Amino acid sequence: MAKVAIMGFGTVGSGVYEIIKTNAAKLQQNADDTVELKYILDIRDFPDHPQKELFTKDFNDILNDEEVTVVAEVMGGLHPAYEFTKSLLLQGKSVVTSNKELVATYGTELLEIAREKNVNYMFEASVGGGIPVIRPMHQCLTANNITKIAGILNGTTNYILYQMIANGKDFETALKNAQDNGYAERNPAADIEGHDACRKIAILASLASRKAVDYNDIPTEGIVNITLDDVKYADKLNSVIKLIGYAEFIGDKVYSIVAPMLIKKSDPLSGVNDVFNAIKVTGDCVGDVMFYGAGAGKLPTASAVVADIVDSVKHKVRSKKFTWYKIDTDIMADKDAKKFAYFVRTNDTLENAKKVFGEICVADSIVDGETAFVTQPLTASEVEAKSKELKNTLKYIRVLD
Amino acid sequence: MAKVAIMGFGTVGSGVYEIIKTNAAKLQQNADDTVELKYILDIRDFPDHPQKELFTKDFNDILNDEEVTVVAEVMGGLHPAYEFTKSLLLQGKSVVTSNKELVATYGTELLEIAREKNVNYMFEASVGGGIPVIRPMHQCLTANNITKIAGILNGTTNYILYQMIANGKDFETALKNAQDNGYAERNPAADIEGHDACRKIAILASLASRKAVDYNDIPTEGIVNITLDDVKYADKLNSVIKLIGYAEFIGDKVYSIVAPMLIKKSDPLSGVNDVFNAIKVTGDCVGDVMFYGAGAGKLPTASAVVADIVDSVKHKVRSKKFTWYKIDTDIMADKDAKKFAYFVRTNDTLENAKKVFGEICVADSIVDGETAFVTQPLTASEVEAKSKELKNTLKYIRVLD
Repeated sequence: MAKVAIMGFGTVGSGVYEIIKTNAAKLQQNADDTVELKYILDIRDFPDHPQKELFTKDFNDILNDEEVTVVAEVMGGLHPAYEFTKSLLLQGKSVVTSNKELVATYGTELLEIAREKNVNYMFEASVGGGIPVIRPMHQCLTANNITKIAGILNGTTNYILYQMIANGKDFETALKNAQDNGYAERNPAADIEGHDACRKIAILASLASRKAVDYNDIPTEGIVNITLDDVKYADKLNSVIKLIGYAEFIGDKVYSIVAPMLIKKSDPLSGVNDVFNAIKVTGDCVGDVMFYGAGAGKLPTASAVVADIVDSVKHKVRSKKFTWYKIDTDIMADKDAKKFAYFVRTNDTLENAKKVFGEICVADSIVDGETAFVTQPLTASEVEAKSKELKNTLKYIRVLD
Repeated sequence: MAKVAIMGFGTVGSGVYEIIKTNAAKLQQNADDTVELKYILDIRDFPDHPQKELFTKDFNDILNDEEVTVVAEVMGGLHPAYEFTKSLLLQGKSVVTSNKELVATYGTELLEIAREKNVNYMFEASVGGGIPVIRPMHQCLTANNITKIAGILNGTTNYILYQMIANGKDFETALKNAQDNGYAERNPAADIEGHDACRKIAILASLASRKAVDYNDIPTEGIVNITLDDVKYADKLNSVIKLIGYAEFIGDKVYSIVAPMLIKKSDPLSGVNDVFNAIKVTGDCVGDVMFYGAGAGKLPTASAVVADIVDSVKHKVRSKKFTWYKIDTDIMADKDAKKFAYFVRTNDTLENAKKVFGEICVADSIVDGETAFVTQPLTASEVEAKSKELKNTLKYIRVLD
C-alpha cells in the first residue's frame, strides 16, 4: 500500500482528491498497488470535509512520516513550495507537481536532488494541464532528435485572441470577457505579457535538450500590442495570430522565444481555439506531431498530477527520463540564429517597402494609408534595421514556419 | 548489449534500420543498453547493402539465436507474420510490430502468449503511424475512464476528402491524384471502404476497454458514396466530412463504427488535413485530448517501431499496460445504443421533412429540388425508419458530437 499526501487544497488539490477517491480501482490496477491518501496540507480549515481527519497544517507531519512515499505539491507559488519540495526530496520522498513556476525556477536544483536521492520529481501537469505532453515528447525523443517545439501554452491569451479572431472583439473587450468568465485573473499580467508561456517553454526546451534553460534568458513578448486590425490582416493572409512559445535546437544551442506569431491556417496549431492548448513537436524522423487538450482546469490538471502519482508509486526507483542538467557554458543561441518571415505594417509606400525588403508578399490593405506585407525570412537584427529604413513602421510580427 | 532483428526490409523495415544506425547513441541512452542489429530477414537479395552480412532468408536463424531478445515484425500481411510472431513469443522473445492487420486479427491470441511467456508484444506503430497514441492514451487511462475515441485513422481517405474540400475535386479525380502521388494503392479498396480504419479503431477500442474487440463486429462504411455536393453542404453547415473510426464505452459494452461523418469546424479533428491522422480521446477527468501527426510513411512509422524496440530492451519483463483479454460474452453494444444527429438530403419538401423529423436545422440548398438538413440525435433504427417515410431520401450522414 502506497501512502500519499496532497499539499494545497485549492482547485487542483481538490481535483486530485476527487480522482484518487473516485478512480481508486483504476489507480490500483495501473500502479500495481493501492494508493491511499494519508494527509492533506492546507493552512485553511475544512471542517465540513467528509475526510477532515486527513487535514493538517503542519508540514512536518508529512515530512517525518516514513509511510508517505509520494507527495503531490499543488499549492502553487515559489515559497514555501520550494522549501517543502526540497525537504521532501532530501528525505527520500518522490514529489509530483503542477507548479510550473517552481519547476521553471528551481527545477534544475530539485532534479539534481531527486537524482542524488534516487527518487522522482515529476511535473507532467506543469505544461499543458491535462494534456499528456511530457511523456509523449519523451517517447518521440527515444527515436528522434527533436528539432523544434512550438506551443500554444497559455489558455487565457488563446481565449482572448480567439475572441478577437472569431467574434471581432477588440483586445480590451476580449480581456474583460476572459476575466468575467474566470479565464483571466484580475491582474492578468503573467498571462498577457507572456510570462506563463515563457516558464512552460523553458521546461519543454530543458527536457528536449536535457540542458537547463533559464526562462530569464528567453525573450518574451505578450499579446498586449495585438490589435483587431492585426488579426484582420492575418485573416487576409490566410493566417491567425497565436501566442507561441518556441524553441529550436541549433547545434549545441537552444534558440527560444515567446511572441505572438502569424500561423497559417494549414498549420494544425491554427485550429486550437478557446482556452485549449497544443504543443507541436518536430522530430527528425517523425516530422510534426501535436498534442492537444485542456491546458488548465481542476480535473484535467489533476488528472495529469494523478498520472505522475501512479507512475511514482509504480517506479519506486527514479525514472531517468524526465530530467535535465545544469550546463556551465552559455547554451542559448544568439537572437539572430533563427530567421523568421515577418508580417510588417507601415505608413510608407509599397514601392519603398519593396526597395527595403526585396521580395515581399503584399496583403490587401485594411487601414487607409497603410502598406502591409510579409517578408522573406530575416534575422531579428535584419528586420529591426530594415524597418527603421522605412518612413514609419507601425509593427512587425513573426510568421511561424 | 541487446541484439535485435528486423523481419521485412520494405519501406518501414529500411526505416527501422536507418534509425537504429543513425540514432544509436540516443537509443543507447534511452534503452540503458546498446541496441545492436543482428539479423534482417527478407526473401529478397540486397547484394549492394553496406551490411549485407546481416541478411538472412531463414527465419530459424532468428528464432534459434538465444542472443536475439527483440524482433521487429514489419513484413505486413497475415502470413507468415502470424506464424513467425507466435513462434518468437513462444520462444520467449519480445516482438514489436507496425502490422495493424495482424494485431487486429490475431492480437488477442498473441497478447495471451506474451503474457504467459512474460515478454512484450508492442504495436505503437500499428495505429497512427509515428504519432505517439497508444502510450499517451494509456497515460490518460491511468487517471481517467476513457469514454470515447474518435479518430482520423486513414491517411489515404483523408487526403481524398481534403482534395474534395479544399480544391473542389470530385471523388474520382481526388482518388486518382492520391494514386498518382503514391498515397493510394492501385487497388484502394482497403482504404476507401474503411477496412484499414476499422482495424485501427478495433485496436484502440480493445486497448481502452481491455476487452478484445473483433473488427468483424464493427459496422464499416467507407467514403465511396461521398460526393462533392455532400462536401459543399457540409461547408454550408460550417463542417467538413471526414472518415471517422469511432468507439464509445457504454456501461460494459463497446459501441463502435467506421463511417464518414460531418465534423464541426470548431472541432480540432476538422483541421486535420492531407494525409495526416489524429486521434481524439475523451476522458471523464481530462476531457478531450488529441494526438496528431503523420499516420504513415517510412521514418514516422519506423520511429514508432524503434520506440517499441527501446521500450522492450529496457523492460525485459513484460509491460502490463498494453494488453486486452478475450471476453466470452458479447461485448458489443446494440447499433441503437448511440444516437447521432444526421445530415439528410431528400427530394421531399421541407414541410414533409419537418413533419417526419420534427425540429431540424435546414441547410441552404445546393441542388435544385433538394431539401437538406440536420436532425436531432437519433438512433440508427430511427433515422432508417424516418428516412423511409420521406418521398425520396438520397442519403444520410452522421454528425460527430
